[in-house]
Amino acid sequence: MSEAAQTLDGWYCLHDFRTIDWTTWKMTPSDERQAAINEFLGLVEKWNKTQAEQQGSHALYTIVGQKADFMMMILRPTMEELNEIETEFNKSKLAEYTIPAHSYVSVVELSNYLAGEGGDPYQNPHVRARLYPELPKANHVCFYPMDKRRQGNDNWYMLSMEDRKKMMYSHGMIGRQYAGKVKQIITGSVGFDDYEWGVTLFADDVLQFKKLVYEMRFDEVSARYGEFGSFFVGNLLDVDRVQSFLDVK
Amino acid sequence: MSEAAQTLDGWYCLHDFRTIDWTTWKMTPSDERQAAINEFLGLVEKWNKTQAEQQGSHALYTIVGQKADFMMMILRPTMEELNEIETEFNKSKLAEYTIPAHSYVSVVELSNYLAGEGGDPYQNPHVRARLYPELPKANHVCFYPMDKRRQGNDNWYMLSMEDRKKMMYSHGMIGRQYAGKVKQIITGSVGFDDYEWGVTLFADDVLQFKKLVYEMRFDEVSARYGEFGSFFVGNLLDVDRVQSFLDVK
Amino acid sequence: MSEAAQTLDGWYCLHDFRTIDWTTWKMTPSDERQAAINEFLGLVEKWNKTQAEQQGSHALYTIVGQKADFMMMILRPTMEELNEIETEFNKSKLAEYTIPAHSYVSVVELSNYLAGEGGDPYQNPHVRARLYPELPKANHVCFYPMDKRRQGNDNWYMLSMEDRKKMMYSHGMIGRQYAGKVKQIITGSVGFDDYEWGVTLFADDVLQFKKLVYEMRFDEVSARYGEFGSFFVGNLLDVDRVQSFLDVK
Amino acid sequence: MSEAAQTLDGWYCLHDFRTIDWTTWKMTPSDERQAAINEFLGLVEKWNKTQAEQQGSHALYTIVGQKADFMMMILRPTMEELNEIETEFNKSKLAEYTIPAHSYVSVVELSNYLAGEGGDPYQNPHVRARLYPELPKANHVCFYPMDKRRQGNDNWYMLSMEDRKKMMYSHGMIGRQYAGKVKQIITGSVGFDDYEWGVTLFADDVLQFKKLVYEMRFDEVSARYGEFGSFFVGNLLDVDRVQSFLDVK
Amino acid sequence: MSEAAQTLDGWYCLHDFRTIDWTTWKMTPSDERQAAINEFLGLVEKWNKTQAEQQGSHALYTIVGQKADFMMMILRPTMEELNEIETEFNKSKLAEYTIPAHSYVSVVELSNYLAGEGGDPYQNPHVRARLYPELPKANHVCFYPMDKRRQGNDNWYMLSMEDRKKMMYSHGMIGRQYAGKVKQIITGSVGFDDYEWGVTLFADDVLQFKKLVYEMRFDEVSARYGEFGSFFVGNLLDVDRVQSFLDVK
Repeated sequence: MSEAAQTLDGWYCLHDFRTIDWTTWKMTPSDERQAAINEFLGLVEKWNKTQAEQQGSHALYTIVGQKADFMMMILRPTMEELNEIETEFNKSKLAEYTIPAHSYVSVVELSNYLAGEGGDPYQNPHVRARLYPELPKANHVCFYPMDKRRQGNDNWYMLSMEDRKKMMYSHGMIGRQYAGKVKQIITGSVGFDDYEWGVTLFADDVLQFKKLVYEMRFDEVSARYGEFGSFFVGNLLDVDRVQSFLDVK
Repeated sequence: MSEAAQTLDGWYCLHDFRTIDWTTWKMTPSDERQAAINEFLGLVEKWNKTQAEQQGSHALYTIVGQKADFMMMILRPTMEELNEIETEFNKSKLAEYTIPAHSYVSVVELSNYLAGEGGDPYQNPHVRARLYPELPKANHVCFYPMDKRRQGNDNWYMLSMEDRKKMMYSHGMIGRQYAGKVKQIITGSVGFDDYEWGVTLFADDVLQFKKLVYEMRFDEVSARYGEFGSFFVGNLLDVDRVQSFLDVK
Repeated sequence: MSEAAQTLDGWYCLHDFRTIDWTTWKMTPSDERQAAINEFLGLVEKWNKTQAEQQGSHALYTIVGQKADFMMMILRPTMEELNEIETEFNKSKLAEYTIPAHSYVSVVELSNYLAGEGGDPYQNPHVRARLYPELPKANHVCFYPMDKRRQGNDNWYMLSMEDRKKMMYSHGMIGRQYAGKVKQIITGSVGFDDYEWGVTLFADDVLQFKKLVYEMRFDEVSARYGEFGSFFVGNLLDVDRVQSFLDVK
Repeated sequence: MSEAAQTLDGWYCLHDFRTIDWTTWKMTPSDERQAAINEFLGLVEKWNKTQAEQQGSHALYTIVGQKADFMMMILRPTMEELNEIETEFNKSKLAEYTIPAHSYVSVVELSNYLAGEGGDPYQNPHVRARLYPELPKANHVCFYPMDKRRQGNDNWYMLSMEDRKKMMYSHGMIGRQYAGKVKQIITGSVGFDDYEWGVTLFADDVLQFKKLVYEMRFDEVSARYGEFGSFFVGNLLDVDRVQSFLDVK
Repeated sequence: MSEAAQTLDGWYCLHDFRTIDWTTWKMTPSDERQAAINEFLGLVEKWNKTQAEQQGSHALYTIVGQKADFMMMILRPTMEELNEIETEFNKSKLAEYTIPAHSYVSVVELSNYLAGEGGDPYQNPHVRARLYPELPKANHVCFYPMDKRRQGNDNWYMLSMEDRKKMMYSHGMIGRQYAGKVKQIITGSVGFDDYEWGVTLFADDVLQFKKLVYEMRFDEVSARYGEFGSFFVGNLLDVDRVQSFLDVK
């Protein structure tokens, strides 16, 4: 039996992807549409307040292509709060015009492959900033889930801790080259959703997602051991832009 | 030919996952909604009575993310009773506002890898308590189905009984470390549903699911031989909370 | 090139799984519902007559879980008759309240691995009874499709006839231990549907399905060479029970 | 790099599978239904004329099981004509009562593994008869798509031309044994659809499909290198039978 | 760790496949239909203007078979513009009669395997013409996504740069033989969509797609390392033909 890596776990995370039923939306009288938008902006206002109080964070992005029209990414201290936010949105007026497109349940995670400083890490401000992050308002987002492969000779979970550590170190080195260009939030989803991790990337230059993920693919960790799910890419949906995004003639 | 492990089998089990059609639900007059809720609470009341008489058990949880809105887990002595409960729910008023999201059919199972005491095990009170359990009211649930792999050199069913026993023992040791934190119900579904087993975990601290499943993944039984289906995670839906969960303006 | 096993082929077989649209069914006036039930019972009556004349057979079972609500299994001498029965059902009133859930097209098959007596086997009464069977009214049914694997070193179709014969013999020995407990109908579907065979099991004790399929999984034929599709399990839907099954308030 | 086999290519081919929405069809006044049938028969009449002029061919079959209710197989000299026929059907009255169930785009193909006579093959009348065939009115049809495998040691495209030729020859020998019983149309779909080939079989005795495909599966070409998609089996839908097939009370 | 190939990246690309809901379209009054067509032609007119200003490009094709009815392929300098065009179409009248069938998000890409001239490649007019291309008005289009395989001994990303370069060179040689017959646009989608690349081929003779893709399949790059998604094939939808394509009686 191989030794499991220890993880530090922060806020719970829900990625909630929605497609808009534009036909029904357009058939709705404009005052009802406006009421739905206002109610939604009220929810976002409440989330902003929570974020200001450092009790969670959130991000809104439109998604390019037919996989979804927009994504809400929500961080909260408990699974119950995620569930409440999801249900509150489901009961809202705007939700009547959206179709669930995809979701992902996870928890912000730091693996100990890269960590290792002494003391209680949960008291370390650098660690806390990463476990309980305020999501950046970058121009673009990229989300994908991933597994470590367990297949024939390519079985991550049968490797020694030392081998895994070495590979994760080299993997992390690639990430560091993108410091300042790409912000990366890793969330663990073993026991919570269908893949083992979710990866959320933020960047002002969308091309950096391609450069980073492509370069990593040649790294042994990804080349031999990475299994990837669907990729979602999107553009920042500022609160100011919600109105025009939903505006129809 | 390799020797099959003997199993002890208890109550039959149905996991029934449902998504709520909130739009239609909201369009329904509030007295009709209340009638639907009351009828559903009446069903639960009946299930409570069966549970009090130790003729079965059940659990209600909301599910986080878009896979489903809530789950009913039902244990009964016969497959016919499961079918009746399912059909009774399908004919209920509340069912008109739900969409089937997923289900799983299995039977509570103890494998003989870990057992081995003398006498008729079905008369052993410890065994009976595990075969005919009262489901706990833990804060959280985690459900996933799994197979033992049969692939190239990683073929569980071609291993000797001795090898399997040894690996299952080490596997069980991990589970024991979570005693008091995670309660685990294993149900067998060979011949009943698409995977070979269902695993239902109960915990007050949802993070324990991730810790347990992740730690086990490094164990050879999971690392080389485990194939996992979809994971569902949820929060306790106490009868008291049904009303507010379904409440809409 | 490896030698193909000869098969004896009997009646053609259609498994037709249906889900009921309970919401629409309940909205229908009770006299229309009764007319739909009566028309369906008339179809079953016709099938009973065909069965009495030994020109085919059929079975009705409710299915546990969300995969389907009920299954019609139909045996007939020609593919045209199967198609006619299917179309006749599709044009019936009851069909308006059902949603196709799954189907399987095959033909009752005996493989020559186990056979071998002299003479024209199609004149042998034992063989005829198996090729043109009257389906039993057992309490429970289990259906699943399967393939023989062709993957790397586990390629059934590259084995010699002798090796396959030996393995099938040992496989058959397991089946014999369940004589009197489980009745097994093997149907071939190469060229007819997506898997190579369909397996339909009948038993009064539903647990025997699990015991049989689990024990067989350790047999080399299944362990190395079996690929399984979805499993459906159900309870006998006697004509007498159709009315109450479909009854709604 | 391995040498690609040369192919001769004939008419383009569309397999178009449709499911009938019987409920809506039955709700339609009988004169509208009749108008829809007449319009469809008019399309078929037009296709018959094209066939008489040897400018294409077509076949109509009902499909057994829930995969589809009927199939139109259309051969034409250009991809544009296939698209026009498809769009013309989509705009027809009958199409309003059908749901697209599956389709396949390909081109009639002869591989040079078996060919080899001198001269311009496109002028050879035997070759022309196979590239521009009139589809037979056999009692039954069987359609399935297939790939040649590229997996580990079983990689068809890494084999030498000589090895492939030898295997294809032996494969062809099986087919010849079914001469007079099964007519086989191979269509190539590399670059056109999701598999590399489509196989359409015609036979008066439906059991011959099973015998042929099963026997071939033991041939190395199929055993090691064949990957198969979904199988569709059906019965001839003569123009005379269209009316009764669509007739509802 | 293996060295990643450098890429040159040009315009962002959206492939947007749509299916027409012909039944609803036909039920719409002809003046409303005409208004929807006119509005759509207005969008195309705007795209033409952008193309004339070399600020992007686009192509319209009908798709053969049931996968979609038509495809819009859009190239633009930013991901935001792609998103705006998509949303503008979604809000249009015609979109009410279309169902999203498939989409693909990528960026025009040149790999450095084949490049290598000195100087800033982004200033090289030959390179610019390929990174910011005007899409041709060829009679036919073929689109498919692909991955480089990472499986057992066939792991592209574990190969040395030299080996990959050699194979890509030989691969490119095949492509060159089709110069003048097939125009190929490669778009990279690592981090943007579910495969690593999208391939869009344009040709006046649709058979050239099959010849090219089939010949390439025998090349080691494809034979051992290519994983292919769904293939879409279509015919040019000239603006002049939009009216007749959408015309219904």
